[in-house]
Amino acid sequence: MTAVAEPDGVARSIDPGVVAGMLDEVYAVCRDDTSGSPADYIPELAAVAPDSFGLCLATADGLVYAVGDTGIEFTIQSISKPFTYALALVDRGLAGVAEHIDVEPSGEPFNEISLEPDTQRPSNPMINSGAITAASLIHGRDAADKFERVRRCYSRFAGRELQMNQAVYESEARTGYRNRAIGYMLRSVGIIDVDPDDAVDRYFRQCSIEITCADLAVMAATLADNGVNPRTGERALSTALTERVLSVMTTCGMYNAAGDWVTTVGLPAKSGVGGGIIAVLPGQIGISVYSPRLDGQGNSVRGVAACRELSRRLELHFCHVTRSARTAIRADYSVAQVPSRSRRSPEDAEVLAAHGDRARVYELHGDLLFAGAERAVRAIESKVGALDALVIDLRRVGEVSAVARGMLDALQTELVRGGSRVALVDPDAKLGHEASSLDPGDPRGRVFIDRDTAAEWCEDIILDLHRPPGQRAQTSIGLDEHPLLAGLDAGYRTRLAADFEPRTFARGELIADRGDPRSGLYLILDGRVRATFSGTDGRVHRLLTLSAGMSFGEIPMLIGEPFMYEISAETTVRVAVMPPDVFDQLTEGHPRLKLALLQRLAAGAYEQMAATVRTLSGNAGNY
Amino acid sequence: MTAVAEPDGVARSIDPGVVAGMLDEVYAVCRDDTSGSPADYIPELAAVAPDSFGLCLATADGLVYAVGDTGIEFTIQSISKPFTYALALVDRGLAGVAEHIDVEPSGEPFNEISLEPDTQRPSNPMINSGAITAASLIHGRDAADKFERVRRCYSRFAGRELQMNQAVYESEARTGYRNRAIGYMLRSVGIIDVDPDDAVDRYFRQCSIEITCADLAVMAATLADNGVNPRTGERALSTALTERVLSVMTTCGMYNAAGDWVTTVGLPAKSGVGGGIIAVLPGQIGISVYSPRLDGQGNSVRGVAACRELSRRLELHFCHVTRSARTAIRADYSVAQVPSRSRRSPEDAEVLAAHGDRARVYELHGDLLFAGAERAVRAIESKVGALDALVIDLRRVGEVSAVARGMLDALQTELVRGGSRVALVDPDAKLGHEASSLDPGDPRGRVFIDRDTAAEWCEDIILDLHRPPGQRAQTSIGLDEHPLLAGLDAGYRTRLAADFEPRTFARGELIADRGDPRSGLYLILDGRVRATFSGTDGRVHRLLTLSAGMSFGEIPMLIGEPFMYEISAETTVRVAVMPPDVFDQLTEGHPRLKLALLQRLAAGAYEQMAATVRTLSGNAGNY
Repeated sequence: MTAVAEPDGVARSIDPGVVAGMLDEVYAVCRDDTSGSPADYIPELAAVAPDSFGLCLATADGLVYAVGDTGIEFTIQSISKPFTYALALVDRGLAGVAEHIDVEPSGEPFNEISLEPDTQRPSNPMINSGAITAASLIHGRDAADKFERVRRCYSRFAGRELQMNQAVYESEARTGYRNRAIGYMLRSVGIIDVDPDDAVDRYFRQCSIEITCADLAVMAATLADNGVNPRTGERALSTALTERVLSVMTTCGMYNAAGDWVTTVGLPAKSGVGGGIIAVLPGQIGISVYSPRLDGQGNSVRGVAACRELSRRLELHFCHVTRSARTAIRADYSVAQVPSRSRRSPEDAEVLAAHGDRARVYELHGDLLFAGAERAVRAIESKVGALDALVIDLRRVGEVSAVARGMLDALQTELVRGGSRVALVDPDAKLGHEASSLDPGDPRGRVFIDRDTAAEWCEDIILDLHRPPGQRAQTSIGLDEHPLLAGLDAGYRTRLAADFEPRTFARGELIADRGDPRSGLYLILDGRVRATFSGTDGRVHRLLTLSAGMSFGEIPMLIGEPFMYEISAETTVRVAVMPPDVFDQLTEGHPRLKLALLQRLAAGAYEQMAATVRTLSGNAGNY
Repeated sequence: MTAVAEPDGVARSIDPGVVAGMLDEVYAVCRDDTSGSPADYIPELAAVAPDSFGLCLATADGLVYAVGDTGIEFTIQSISKPFTYALALVDRGLAGVAEHIDVEPSGEPFNEISLEPDTQRPSNPMINSGAITAASLIHGRDAADKFERVRRCYSRFAGRELQMNQAVYESEARTGYRNRAIGYMLRSVGIIDVDPDDAVDRYFRQCSIEITCADLAVMAATLADNGVNPRTGERALSTALTERVLSVMTTCGMYNAAGDWVTTVGLPAKSGVGGGIIAVLPGQIGISVYSPRLDGQGNSVRGVAACRELSRRLELHFCHVTRSARTAIRADYSVAQVPSRSRRSPEDAEVLAAHGDRARVYELHGDLLFAGAERAVRAIESKVGALDALVIDLRRVGEVSAVARGMLDALQTELVRGGSRVALVDPDAKLGHEASSLDPGDPRGRVFIDRDTAAEWCEDIILDLHRPPGQRAQTSIGLDEHPLLAGLDAGYRTRLAADFEPRTFARGELIADRGDPRSGLYLILDGRVRATFSGTDGRVHRLLTLSAGMSFGEIPMLIGEPFMYEISAETTVRVAVMPPDVFDQLTEGHPRLKLALLQRLAAGAYEQMAATVRTLSGNAGNY
């Protein structure tokens, strides 16, 4: 049984579940090893229950899986080092800290003084000399204020107010001769430029801060989460400094077992003589273990074993590759292969069939890091010169790294220089193009919120460039020319034409709302009309755009059902409408005329179905 | 201008392009630094053109971007160390090699002997003592065979036959007193258990193998690509051993600058005194630089600078997180929200509307690693007990790690135990379930190749469980009961019924192919009929399933167009067909009867449109 602490902070017991069950197994595998002994250089550390064992895994959304003794408080000891180093970096900057502490693994035990021969700097902030130096660099009005800033820093990582254990502190302070020696040595070579007793005292205090195994998991998850505490949402450290702290933990976190740790666990980590270990998979999870029995290098025996098991079973090693980088292109096709939902006249459809391969849509997906973006950019730039227009659809993309954003900007410039018009489908402005640019020479180009409209924009470019001389877009027709009447014999046509009423709608006007009762048979004479529906994603999607020579409203008319979707005017629209009562009377008065009308309406329905099937085929992978 | 070597091996000059332009910039930024000097301990190394500078980046699919002097041959020197270590691991296994060489960073210069005080092992295989030991562990009939195996190993990484530079080898062999001393020291403590001269000689030979900067990039990309050479497709090293080699390069690859390298570059790497450096981003890219001027630690000055710039600009640091792990669930919905394309009787549709929330579809996406799978498993297992059936759709998933596969197996077991039936949509058997299991208690469950069929299976379970007692699935009706005729007055009905011919189709039989001319108006009396189309993905997709009480063929009939999609019998099917000539004659003989028929057909078309709109709405994010 595993207690899972929910993000609301309430811990409760539940049935194991899959992940909790996996942790239970790791716990069981490691529990039997009772070798090693707790630290005993001060009585308080020797007094712990030596066989306590807790194991936690915290996720990037702040859930903590916990097995065993995860609520016992113990002192953080050396696991404090990366956090004080972090605060020193905040206070002094990377360069300011680097003047005092290097970042090289020392290959020596934690309590070696290990100063570099030339600069006298401690090798790294994870050995005592480096940690005491880091403590000396903390800003504050006075000693009390400086330590309070350290305590608050740790508390932000843990997501609760941590406190110092006074007895442990006093014991450390009473017996810490070696650390005092280190402090004075550092002062003598000028690496510490304040009172060394003050720095060493702060170091004793920070080591005496009490945490639980569950606290450590959240602290580790905060490092995993770019410095943001996933439970409180509070930023404990900047992204850049978090990266630095994790780097140093990678090479220097596990004392002189760093190499073995990197090969068998492969996670930035830090251990403490209190029996704790934290390990971090950047971006993913934080792990903590508590078990006081230590090995010869001062690392928790069961802690090391549990981290190895977790890394192996959960495949967490940072050199472990599940698969190689792949292109960020999910699909690509020309507008000849997957047309927009704008219904075109037969002449225009012919132009698009012949030249539509000169306009392509590229759908990207996944998080855009360098390698995936490189493959995508390479594929797209191979088409420079061969395309009149192209659409880069970013709706399925997750995060866009700064390098990928720069690459896509450069790609747009290159494409525009090569003579292509470029549009983005980027409703969330992932590339930072907050507004569409209407200037065709502007590489930042057009920005659409849906792919279909972008594809239509491409089609319009193709039509403008490739329509035969003299052939114009048919935007306006007379009622006699409307295909629904044009094929009828003259007598029928005249009789019917009299039954239609002219109407005009302004751009954007709603012609029929979803659920409206039938209101007539509409023939479009001028302008464009759009049928839309609201998707489960809360956005309005276009189903079809209809233009002069097309019709709508027929199905509600025929069967008396309400409109299935919204119909609105995309431009100023002129229509001819046959009112419902006139339509109904036709059955009695002129059944053959009505049959001819229905047959033509069915032809329109067929065309509409065919367009739907084309759309479905183009998106077949989605079904 | 950058030469790009295509995977076909032909190098050619092209316009820079986006990525090549970025490399050009890095190259220009680093070129001005002419500090440092080439190695001069043998005349052959001192004789190089000191200001040569080449930079390559190889992708996981084997493209090599190259700037500058990337075709100049030089000796591999210490960059040989990880590759001989790799071959030693192949020959002796992890444990066999670990008896002779540790994996700890030494914190000392490369030519220190650095033996561990207790075991006498060299600290790691990247210092000379460890590299000579690795050379001693290579299998082979004799010295010539052993070196030939080394040369072939390197050649597999490079993707071409590499050769040794005889003059450099002879010079190294003549002057390498210190390395000979190391060899004898290692022999004296028993770490080398063969002739030390033989091991040292092999080490001199391996260091004298000639490579170009472009070769090194491919070697690095092979390490990035889990040990598979991305240009030849040949496996040079197993995945597990590649992980080990990269781990050791992380902590020990850059001599005593390892810590600085990890913090500022953050990539496993190796440098050589010949002026080369390789760096690897696991799973993504390989980088190589050649510039012979070295810094005080023996690393190429411009090489280090270029790697820093690339890491910073391309965001390659292994602790750099673009964003935290997110759930692998892309979408989830009940079958009440997004029904299958199986058309249901009104009674069944009512049951599905009321109880369809007890069956859910979970669409997963992305590569399934631990953290993403954890979030998905957690979300799904929160529904244990609340679902009668569920579908896990894996079609958008990339790679599935072993841990994720285990987690999904465990989840299925848990769900089945909780009373849910589970189906996978997994046409590529990503979870390894090669066949569908019809046993409802088998957690491996049903496997479908498309989501729609799986959703229908869920609906059938809901209908079985929640249909009111007494209400049966309507699978068979008489012609009189068919809704197309049922509403007509008795006279019309009788007259029409006589015009229909009975026909039966066997399960799987094609009733109408795409493009077939109209063949009649079909009323389904018994069984199920399926309309399908072939998607751009090459798979056959279901458009609709129709059952007793429904009809098809009406649109081709009405307007004389061919069938738009294939119609086939999903079960044994009994239909009543009105032949085309009979249908046409109705217009003349009984126009009002035909109008009534058309009106009912239009109602069917409406229903079909409504189903399409529902499907589109449910997939709105796709458009």
